[in-house]
Amino acid sequence: MPSYKQTEIMKQNDTIAAISTPIGVGGIAVVRISGVEAYDVAITHLSVAVLEPRKATYCRFDDIDDVVATYFAAPHSYTGEDTVEIACHGSLYVQQAVLQALTESGARMAQAGEFTLRAFANGKLDLSQAEAVADLIDSVTPAQHRLAMSQLRGGYAQKLKELRQQLVDLTALLELELDFSQEDVEFADRSQLRELLTTLHTQLTTLIQSFSMGNAVKRGIPVAIVGAPNVGKSTLLNALLQDDRAIVSPVPGTTRDTIEGLLTLDGITFRLIDTAGLRETDDSVEQLGIARSRKAYEDALVVLHVHDTTEGMEEIHTNDGKRHIIVLNKCDMIEAGQREVQACHINVSAKNGDGLEALRLALKEAVGDRAADDTLLTNSRHYDALRKVDEALKRVDQALDEEMPADLVAVDLRDALYHLGTITGAVASEEVLGSIFGRFCVGK
Amino acid sequence: MPSYKQTEIMKQNDTIAAISTPIGVGGIAVVRISGVEAYDVAITHLSVAVLEPRKATYCRFDDIDDVVATYFAAPHSYTGEDTVEIACHGSLYVQQAVLQALTESGARMAQAGEFTLRAFANGKLDLSQAEAVADLIDSVTPAQHRLAMSQLRGGYAQKLKELRQQLVDLTALLELELDFSQEDVEFADRSQLRELLTTLHTQLTTLIQSFSMGNAVKRGIPVAIVGAPNVGKSTLLNALLQDDRAIVSPVPGTTRDTIEGLLTLDGITFRLIDTAGLRETDDSVEQLGIARSRKAYEDALVVLHVHDTTEGMEEIHTNDGKRHIIVLNKCDMIEAGQREVQACHINVSAKNGDGLEALRLALKEAVGDRAADDTLLTNSRHYDALRKVDEALKRVDQALDEEMPADLVAVDLRDALYHLGTITGAVASEEVLGSIFGRFCVGK
Repeated sequence: MPSYKQTEIMKQNDTIAAISTPIGVGGIAVVRISGVEAYDVAITHLSVAVLEPRKATYCRFDDIDDVVATYFAAPHSYTGEDTVEIACHGSLYVQQAVLQALTESGARMAQAGEFTLRAFANGKLDLSQAEAVADLIDSVTPAQHRLAMSQLRGGYAQKLKELRQQLVDLTALLELELDFSQEDVEFADRSQLRELLTTLHTQLTTLIQSFSMGNAVKRGIPVAIVGAPNVGKSTLLNALLQDDRAIVSPVPGTTRDTIEGLLTLDGITFRLIDTAGLRETDDSVEQLGIARSRKAYEDALVVLHVHDTTEGMEEIHTNDGKRHIIVLNKCDMIEAGQREVQACHINVSAKNGDGLEALRLALKEAVGDRAADDTLLTNSRHYDALRKVDEALKRVDQALDEEMPADLVAVDLRDALYHLGTITGAVASEEVLGSIFGRFCVGK
Repeated sequence: MPSYKQTEIMKQNDTIAAISTPIGVGGIAVVRISGVEAYDVAITHLSVAVLEPRKATYCRFDDIDDVVATYFAAPHSYTGEDTVEIACHGSLYVQQAVLQALTESGARMAQAGEFTLRAFANGKLDLSQAEAVADLIDSVTPAQHRLAMSQLRGGYAQKLKELRQQLVDLTALLELELDFSQEDVEFADRSQLRELLTTLHTQLTTLIQSFSMGNAVKRGIPVAIVGAPNVGKSTLLNALLQDDRAIVSPVPGTTRDTIEGLLTLDGITFRLIDTAGLRETDDSVEQLGIARSRKAYEDALVVLHVHDTTEGMEEIHTNDGKRHIIVLNKCDMIEAGQREVQACHINVSAKNGDGLEALRLALKEAVGDRAADDTLLTNSRHYDALRKVDEALKRVDQALDEEMPADLVAVDLRDALYHLGTITGAVASEEVLGSIFGRFCVGK
């Protein structure tokens, strides 16, 4: 069980610098320098003698630019170290020249995510919060942003920490028994342990099950549009997206690739996937397309079954966990009185827009409040860790059933604790840290 | 003569907001809000009651993000107005959400260059300095950056302002004479006016003449590589650029398009232009290429005449203001003792690199100190204005020669003053301001 205190990656205490604003040309750019020598390195380039903490100071940076420099004294900075932020003009030349000047006088170029790594090393963030920073920076939709902010502000990590503490206490008691193993005493209350296990198991199951929705919210909820050729699937896609995304033609089999488009409703992003119509065909390209349609169907959380209302429809009988919506398209072709009216059917005309609002409402209802839950599990690393915790706890449960000795129970408890600890970074290997912080942009 | 005080574009005093950092995803982004209501609009979104001037304050912005907000109280800000800078996480969502929140509570989206326009309107910058800000942001090479900084810090504008003041004083005296025109007095000393005109004319001529070099430094000094087919022009281009920029082959006429590459030597950027070899040809594409070669030759400040040293060379006799360098290529093909050794010839082997260092030195010497002059004229608007000033002053000179009455002299003097004033923006039309600030990125 490596602890983060032992990993090389955490031992760096030199001074690092990077451009923290997006790459490119703009009005202003910010170059950030952090570390024990950050202040000394920065001040040698500035036309002022002193930077007071947190005071934005207008001054000259060498003969390169007029800048606004702000000093954040440790530990009151993002990294927890002495940090100076230099806001300069956003030209490619100026940004590079300022960064180069800093690196030539003692700073090192920061690697991707290194500022946040230091924030983690200095206890300003736990590991799941550091990961939330990366998610926050990547967020484009309101739902992605909301999940990242929730995780950054603690999210389920706080709850897991409390549970972890209880597990730690119980493990300590179990291990105390080991010291007195000759005397056959029981310090740890087995029924209390059982109770905790049940609570933990319930919480874990909810979190683990929320992953498919959490992941969907993060990437866009996959919605497969399926149906026979020529029922108007591509026209429906275009109508929902209000865009000419897919080629439409009266020829059955026009769509071969699966075509995607993003639709955001009340902050939730849906990934609409138009598929090739399912039919027997000798066309080899179309066969490939149909194989992709089946894959899209399997991956979807919501399926829109599109039928030509003039041709009738099939019933859907399935219990596969997906939400199925039956769409009767081309309702403009028949009289209103003749339309199928059932709760689970939606009459639409992709052509003239009838019924699209009802379809949008049905999409929102299909994911319901689940997508708005702020404690959805979105991180696949956390998902894997929680599944390992769950497995270890099942072994503990079994050991208790079989009245195994305390030392054997303790082994599995420690295993559960270890995996729980990897989420917040209470324990973290160099490899894990490297892969987490490598995801970041340089400058954060 | 419109004055800037009269133009609509200067009268805006509402509150504007924009993302000031480059467009894209990064560690942090800065949203800037400026105007009379900037503080009030910003503070409603922040989790603190007060922002002290210049104090970087960590707080929450609505439920969108944790930010660092800094208030710059008027007139001690870039625009001269109350300004708040909000440093948020650099995600596309967060940047847009912060900007949108500000615009929904009273700010307006800033137009391109509008912050700098306000700095100009509030006397923080003159017009030539505002233009220098745009040049500074666009600068990629050290030379571009140096010229922009020089202009931002006053440059020749200061000198022009002093001359303008002297002209203003003389014009005032001339106009005083007009009030006493019945009494035939001369307040204005004609010989002093002559003297000033001579000084001004000298300065103007130097500046006007520096434009071709200034412009060249800004865009890269054009260097045409010319010569017969197959003497190794493309190989020389590639060798100087240390890159496979141009296709080379033993077939004469391989290069048809003019191919460019940028070479930076001691901070000066040269725009090397490889041209089609000049020869009679029936190939219509090659003919087009040869026409382009002639154009490249005409536009060049420096010409590299490349010869195959095994085939001899022509002499260059021209007085066209260009710098001509004769390059005897393929010197690896003949014995060192047999090489032409003359000051104005450089023996090189583009193939093995011999003599390239001498050629680089010759390029630097060809532009000499002229390119390192910080007061080169680089702005074509200033160039046009100065030429108009020069023409007006020539008319003044002529009027003095012909002993014209003061009122006629004064008309031309005022014309010169007007055009001189357009450079710093002492006078500026809405159209001129629109075209200058429209060049900027939004957020500056």
